[in-house]
Amino acid sequence: MAIFQKSEKISTIDFVPISKIIVDSANLSEKLLQGDTRSVARAITIVENNSKAASDLMKAIFPKTGNALVIGITGAPGAGKSSLVDKLAFYYKNKGERIGIVCVDPSSPFSGGAILGDRIRMSTLGLDKNIFIRSMATRGNLGGLSRATVDAVAILDAAGFDKVIVETVGVGQDEVEIVKTADVSVVVLVPGMGDDIQAIKAGIMEIGDVFVINKADREGVLRTEKELEALLTLAMRPDFWNPPIIKTVATESKGIEDLSKAIESYYEFQKKGENLERRKAIAKWRLLELLQERLLADILNRNGTGAKLDRLAQEIAEKRNNPYSAVEEILK
Amino acid sequence: MAIFQKSEKISTIDFVPISKIIVDSANLSEKLLQGDTRSVARAITIVENNSKAASDLMKAIFPKTGNALVIGITGAPGAGKSSLVDKLAFYYKNKGERIGIVCVDPSSPFSGGAILGDRIRMSTLGLDKNIFIRSMATRGNLGGLSRATVDAVAILDAAGFDKVIVETVGVGQDEVEIVKTADVSVVVLVPGMGDDIQAIKAGIMEIGDVFVINKADREGVLRTEKELEALLTLAMRPDFWNPPIIKTVATESKGIEDLSKAIESYYEFQKKGENLERRKAIAKWRLLELLQERLLADILNRNGTGAKLDRLAQEIAEKRNNPYSAVEEILK
Repeated sequence: MAIFQKSEKISTIDFVPISKIIVDSANLSEKLLQGDTRSVARAITIVENNSKAASDLMKAIFPKTGNALVIGITGAPGAGKSSLVDKLAFYYKNKGERIGIVCVDPSSPFSGGAILGDRIRMSTLGLDKNIFIRSMATRGNLGGLSRATVDAVAILDAAGFDKVIVETVGVGQDEVEIVKTADVSVVVLVPGMGDDIQAIKAGIMEIGDVFVINKADREGVLRTEKELEALLTLAMRPDFWNPPIIKTVATESKGIEDLSKAIESYYEFQKKGENLERRKAIAKWRLLELLQERLLADILNRNGTGAKLDRLAQEIAEKRNNPYSAVEEILK
Repeated sequence: MAIFQKSEKISTIDFVPISKIIVDSANLSEKLLQGDTRSVARAITIVENNSKAASDLMKAIFPKTGNALVIGITGAPGAGKSSLVDKLAFYYKNKGERIGIVCVDPSSPFSGGAILGDRIRMSTLGLDKNIFIRSMATRGNLGGLSRATVDAVAILDAAGFDKVIVETVGVGQDEVEIVKTADVSVVVLVPGMGDDIQAIKAGIMEIGDVFVINKADREGVLRTEKELEALLTLAMRPDFWNPPIIKTVATESKGIEDLSKAIESYYEFQKKGENLERRKAIAKWRLLELLQERLLADILNRNGTGAKLDRLAQEIAEKRNNPYSAVEEILK
């Protein structure tokens, strides 16, 4: 396990509440573009809260994005994504690169699941100044998680990280969209999952540029591989790429180099193709996400909307009103 | 397997394109409230497309909702949710009830995953006139899946179905929100999944009113049960309910009655408590979902917005613009 060299200084991930942050956008973006980790952490907090400062910041750094290789990693809970991401990060680090990791965690606001996950992983990853890790948790009902995540990736990209890994727990709608914005999308399976039609239904098959069968020391790996191959044969990709299947045992660091090579090979492959259409589709998605968030925020920030929303929700709960009439009242 | 009585007439689930439907809201809602299956299917198509007709329809039927027991079932892909839902539906049917099933499927629009899933399940379920099954698939980037799903549940409720089961594939953000709107939320696990911190991170633990360990004939069931118990002990619920853990082998119809009893017992339990606050929180969530969708639709339906969106996406893809400035331009 030579790759576990916990060395160097503690990487400072700050949890300063937004109200305490005095934002000097110009100064922040300047330090961020120089790769200052503290500024990166602060910038992500700002985009999470989507204030006016977020807008200024993103405008300033956007032209500097597009240099990192962005890797999206998804798969069902229990597939061992975190271990895989950690080992991949160490692998890149040992080649002298800087790696940013953004985890999307659909935990409810009650549990602090994201924080827990962070803490556990900090013990191996966070001590390395060349690896930056941050969890994005949901913040209630107002959405914006996808937008904030994609902004966080842009921040790490602009800050000069060589690789940015976006890890999504779960295979929900938003999570799939986020992974699609990556340069290379990796779908992680485990032996035994392939024996269920659910794996097809999950809609994650077609977003995979690279497939990983993790925990490949378990029984059933051959069957899963064969089933996956059969599925991939059925689905002809528009770009004619043939997604490789990599077997890994992340907990034992096995197969990590193979995975990195597969990622690299798709990255090279897609660079040759017409990339602009894909980037345009991503840009459109980002625009719509941001637009929707901004429109809702504008309405909710109007005087009296909060109280009105409360009253209408009460009326609906008591069946004296319905959501459709209520929304019309708000929009009036 | 006596419960597999494929009998009676074929339940007609129509796939008429919305443009072909001449909507007579008053007539449709009247027939729907009488429990006409064809009208139910049509009404769901209408809410999926969120036209003006959807609004009229939902306003008309909303006062008639609130009678069905709504059961949310979630869990990771491969946990065997579909089989479990199917067996539970047959169990209720054999007790003389009518069951509506709404499946949320985050497949991309390319694969038609939802349709595939539907077809396979139609072969066992769709032939029964007392069981109605419908998949809700994502339709591109404009969201609205959660809203449409909750509307579909309301339609089945108003149409007099005794039980409405909402099945979500995956454990994403939207999926968790949808399951929360159910009267009873069931989280499905399989042996071996509990040995991973991911299970906690997935944020599904705390939404479970009832837990199921499916595929309980597999190895590791005791360990998963113990780990789950330990986790549940850690998390004290605000209502002091102690979520039961039910072991099932859905493919062999084992444990289905136990599951139905557990669902019933939580349903009785929560009826005693203060329910209005919960219903109000759900109403608020529905309001915000609908509001957001409506606001975006209003902007996109404006003359010229489509072309502008295209141009801005192109500029962003070419790095001549950034999403934040672009959104400001749209909102001007």
